[in-house]
Amino acid sequence: MNHTIETILQHRSIRQFKVEPIEAEKLQLILACANAASTSSFIQCSSIIRVTNKSNRALLAELAGGQSYVESAAEFLVFCADFNRHQQIHPQAQLGFAEQTLIGAVDTALMGQNAMLAAESMGLGGVYIGGIRNNPQQVTELLELPKHVLPLFGMCLGYPAKVPEQKPRLPLDIVVHQDSYQSIDKSVLAKYDNEISRYYASRNRNNKSTSWSEQITSTLSKESRPFMLEYIQAQGFSLK
Amino acid sequence: MNHTIETILQHRSIRQFKVEPIEAEKLQLILACANAASTSSFIQCSSIIRVTNKSNRALLAELAGGQSYVESAAEFLVFCADFNRHQQIHPQAQLGFAEQTLIGAVDTALMGQNAMLAAESMGLGGVYIGGIRNNPQQVTELLELPKHVLPLFGMCLGYPAKVPEQKPRLPLDIVVHQDSYQSIDKSVLAKYDNEISRYYASRNRNNKSTSWSEQITSTLSKESRPFMLEYIQAQGFSLK
Repeated sequence: MNHTIETILQHRSIRQFKVEPIEAEKLQLILACANAASTSSFIQCSSIIRVTNKSNRALLAELAGGQSYVESAAEFLVFCADFNRHQQIHPQAQLGFAEQTLIGAVDTALMGQNAMLAAESMGLGGVYIGGIRNNPQQVTELLELPKHVLPLFGMCLGYPAKVPEQKPRLPLDIVVHQDSYQSIDKSVLAKYDNEISRYYASRNRNNKSTSWSEQITSTLSKESRPFMLEYIQAQGFSLK
Repeated sequence: MNHTIETILQHRSIRQFKVEPIEAEKLQLILACANAASTSSFIQCSSIIRVTNKSNRALLAELAGGQSYVESAAEFLVFCADFNRHQQIHPQAQLGFAEQTLIGAVDTALMGQNAMLAAESMGLGGVYIGGIRNNPQQVTELLELPKHVLPLFGMCLGYPAKVPEQKPRLPLDIVVHQDSYQSIDKSVLAKYDNEISRYYASRNRNNKSTSWSEQITSTLSKESRPFMLEYIQAQGFSLK
């Protein structure tokens, strides 16, 4: 098993950081790695906003649902799908297609994961912050994002102060299908639910009593950011 | 510079593969790495279809716009956003939110990039195949994808027969913004356009005469898979 695979398999979200900053050369490497990801048809439709302004960091922490590490992490990056860039170059660019939302989300996430792994490979840690989508309009205004720019996720990075246990993932038997889609094997799921119940009951922080099935049943019984379609369309995405 | 960062920075898309297969243990590691990626609120909404059926591989190569390596690569994986899994567990799950399309696309792409890097770190190569979105309905039928499953991209993997030059990316000065969105610096873009023109003029295959600005102007003068919104919604995504 090589260093890359070890890095990938060792992943856990880090939410508690030391106060020390990330060295400038390391940050440059992280950003260069982000930028080396594949890009659909060479479209290069992603932007990264590095937020250094302290009061904006505090506001973003609040907008993300009170996630204090958005403020305290050494770095906070906001990854955006960006077709405004193309409109600056070609004012008549055909934009607003749902396809571009998919390309933007996929390509930007590839960049994000490169950045995350580059950071982790150097002893840093991080966590994705989907919470910036709690209040997308305010985030958009705070970062002065023009139309055709869609903030997808934030990323906290820094030196880990505490490394949590790893959360067990669904078994590959459920995630990987051969040749055609297969329904869940209930006995495999039951075993996994037991594993997750044990994990939640025994972990060091935020103990709880729930299986994965119970958790997702609860999560998906509620609306999921029901304002998102309207917001996305106002930003010029998924209109057609 | 460590092995992970070297792997990331060495990336290029591989489209010509040796005939030798990927060893079973390596494939397992690639899939395990995919599965180790972050997942939004632990929702785990991704599935991977490993296509081994020869005639389906040939059909997919054609549906993806005549990309023969979809047929000839040692492995072809189709990465999907998958909320059908959750509906199997919780038939009343609230689905159809645009937010879930974003989560699905982002989380699935994080998995994809883990898989790609794991493969590259072991001397394999690969290429993302967005072309499966050329004919999403046929791909859906071929892989028997039920509602609430969205095929996002394919991935060819195998041992490289030919390693192409690296394609220069936009300068970080354009991709990374500090604190707020900044418009493109035209002089930085002009330099990059020159660099890309030189790259296209001098590369070993598919020489052409175009800058990046010219290329994206041409790409974005046409509609971008205009059937996508209708297809996505028929699959139960981005309805609200």
